[in-house]
Amino acid sequence: MPRINAERLLSELRRFARFGAHKTGVHRPTYSAEDMESRRWLASQYEALGLDAHIDGVGNVFGMPRSPRRSLLIGSHAESQNHAGWLDGALGVIYGLEVARAFAETPDCAELPIAPVAWADEESHYITLLGSRSYVGDISEAEIANAVNVYHGQPLRDALKAAGLAGIPRRQAEPERHVGYLEAHIEQGDSLEATGKRIGIVTSIVGIWQYRIAFDGVQNHAGTTRMAIRKDAGVAAAMLAMAIAERFPQVAAERSVWTTGRITLEPGAPSIIPGRAEMLFQFRDADVSVLERMDVALRDLVEQTCARSGCSAEVERTATGRPWVMDQAFQEALEASAERHAPGMHVRMPSGASHDAQLVARKLRAAMLFVPSIGGISHHWTENTDDADLVLGCQVLADAAETILRTQGD
Amino acid sequence: MPRINAERLLSELRRFARFGAHKTGVHRPTYSAEDMESRRWLASQYEALGLDAHIDGVGNVFGMPRSPRRSLLIGSHAESQNHAGWLDGALGVIYGLEVARAFAETPDCAELPIAPVAWADEESHYITLLGSRSYVGDISEAEIANAVNVYHGQPLRDALKAAGLAGIPRRQAEPERHVGYLEAHIEQGDSLEATGKRIGIVTSIVGIWQYRIAFDGVQNHAGTTRMAIRKDAGVAAAMLAMAIAERFPQVAAERSVWTTGRITLEPGAPSIIPGRAEMLFQFRDADVSVLERMDVALRDLVEQTCARSGCSAEVERTATGRPWVMDQAFQEALEASAERHAPGMHVRMPSGASHDAQLVARKLRAAMLFVPSIGGISHHWTENTDDADLVLGCQVLADAAETILRTQGD
Repeated sequence: MPRINAERLLSELRRFARFGAHKTGVHRPTYSAEDMESRRWLASQYEALGLDAHIDGVGNVFGMPRSPRRSLLIGSHAESQNHAGWLDGALGVIYGLEVARAFAETPDCAELPIAPVAWADEESHYITLLGSRSYVGDISEAEIANAVNVYHGQPLRDALKAAGLAGIPRRQAEPERHVGYLEAHIEQGDSLEATGKRIGIVTSIVGIWQYRIAFDGVQNHAGTTRMAIRKDAGVAAAMLAMAIAERFPQVAAERSVWTTGRITLEPGAPSIIPGRAEMLFQFRDADVSVLERMDVALRDLVEQTCARSGCSAEVERTATGRPWVMDQAFQEALEASAERHAPGMHVRMPSGASHDAQLVARKLRAAMLFVPSIGGISHHWTENTDDADLVLGCQVLADAAETILRTQGD
Repeated sequence: MPRINAERLLSELRRFARFGAHKTGVHRPTYSAEDMESRRWLASQYEALGLDAHIDGVGNVFGMPRSPRRSLLIGSHAESQNHAGWLDGALGVIYGLEVARAFAETPDCAELPIAPVAWADEESHYITLLGSRSYVGDISEAEIANAVNVYHGQPLRDALKAAGLAGIPRRQAEPERHVGYLEAHIEQGDSLEATGKRIGIVTSIVGIWQYRIAFDGVQNHAGTTRMAIRKDAGVAAAMLAMAIAERFPQVAAERSVWTTGRITLEPGAPSIIPGRAEMLFQFRDADVSVLERMDVALRDLVEQTCARSGCSAEVERTATGRPWVMDQAFQEALEASAERHAPGMHVRMPSGASHDAQLVARKLRAAMLFVPSIGGISHHWTENTDDADLVLGCQVLADAAETILRTQGD
């Protein structure tokens, strides 16, 4: 049985959090200097394990075993949201490294090939799940050519060039080369903590549908334009946000969630009636028919808002992620391993968050493991997980990896 | 009677619009290179008229007659809103210059002293009405020291230094030196155009009360945080905006206006529940009791929004401008002049927009003249006024200036 090195695991997690350290979290946007430094560091660690290490054309870092046997891909994404937590993504990446090290050090596991991986831009600085989408062939060169950073507008092509990735091929999935893919991640919610569980085995990952909604009204002077003749795009945006808050509970399912993450009024000055308002809106569910119902409701509410506000609107669906069910045999391996190390303290659960595993699952058998998030907090620099849970999660993953390679591998 | 030079007036208005030209409008933020260039150009034109020209410590440009007689101050503000119209402010500045030139050229008017002036930052890049507030002694050094650019955050002190204004005294109003102040401006609304009038004589200027309202909720993951436990600051902001839209028509007066010019959600990412939302809100009326009623209603609605959303809020009133009545004798002089040049095509009206005249009126007798805005559009680069109206307005102003200096002056 592979024994992970708890001290090394915790120390490497903390070492990795120094790339872009921000308060007790990290600020490591995709392709930033800190992000690329962290990827080069990972490649050097993979290399030191005797793996064929390389960074591909979108920044995905692979440590490919030289063994002819099919390997188990293990990882997550290396970058962070802006000014966010130290474990989101990094946890699964460092678990992949630690499991590879533990296998290499365990005599009867050394011949079981582990391929650690770190994906790029799961966190949507340019394109949501860019690295894993690229890996499974779900992205076109045109989409890459048109993408810009959602915060500061830098073209993706320029960012890739600045990161030294221009001209490097994007590695494509090789189903014949891998037994499958495992990803560990913090839960990012409070349900493990609230029920006293320490390990979550993911049954399915929700689909996320994302929208850019723009209202066009008439920009004018905020003092001389009578209320009666205004077409205020900002009022239209607020109207839609409130209509969603009132209607969605009726069309959504029990576990559905929806969020307006950004509202931008143009020109944004105190004495000017906003002529344009843009909203970034998304919803999530594990059931496609529920997603479709919410789509219909949204479009209906936008139409009503236009009629009431006198503004016109454009609705663009920018992402249509489908829900994905995790591999049954892999789930069983994770569950058996969890039961060995933490009897009765594990649970099967859907993932409300999107993960690279849902993309990789299109080409490889895939499964995911969750560890608890303290207070359910994530996407914030105060995000954290108990050290004991960090260690337990990695050991459960390592054992499950052994089971999978022995029972499902060559 | 002073005869203005129509061709020169139009040509100088167009020349002035080249400072920061943007499409058919201008982008000339306070203390930008283009703004300072335009101010130095004005000073050189004042100088060429034999006036004592200088730029004071906040960028106000004065052309002070060397005559011992009391002069009539005529002007407006020189900077523009971002990417806005060519006439807002500039019209009154160039009218001041043209009237000074016309008086200098008219033998029996040459001894009547005109003092052209161009105020700074009426348009709130740093502090609303900064130049005229400074002139009437309504601003402290502390306020100047704390002010930053509302769009990009540069401290006002740094901007003044970069503009070469550090250490220059701020000129204070000298009531004994002036008969009063006249300001011409585009209407910025559509009421002149809609009623077929060509000149508006301003009776009073509305007071503007301005607010920064911040909601604090709990930032969290947009996929894993159940709807029931969210404290979404963005939803709170939308809730308040809609509550204002519903309640304000009941507490406001007929001509009151209110506007949310900006909404900012933090951190502003599609997959993060906004932990903080900030709104810039303002309302206007010519009656203080109506302003007070709207203030009470706003605070009440913020409290209700906190109770409903689970968020907390801070309300900061950032401006408390009081309404101001224009000088009666000056209004009569403007009206008589308008009647001579455009019989029956003028009207007395309140100003829904804020103007430097409301500040200057604290120290000097003051009045204002409006020319029509095509389509009522302003604060946008498509802002415009018919050439014939541009010429008429300046001639009416020049005649009224003569009347005022002859009947109210030394």
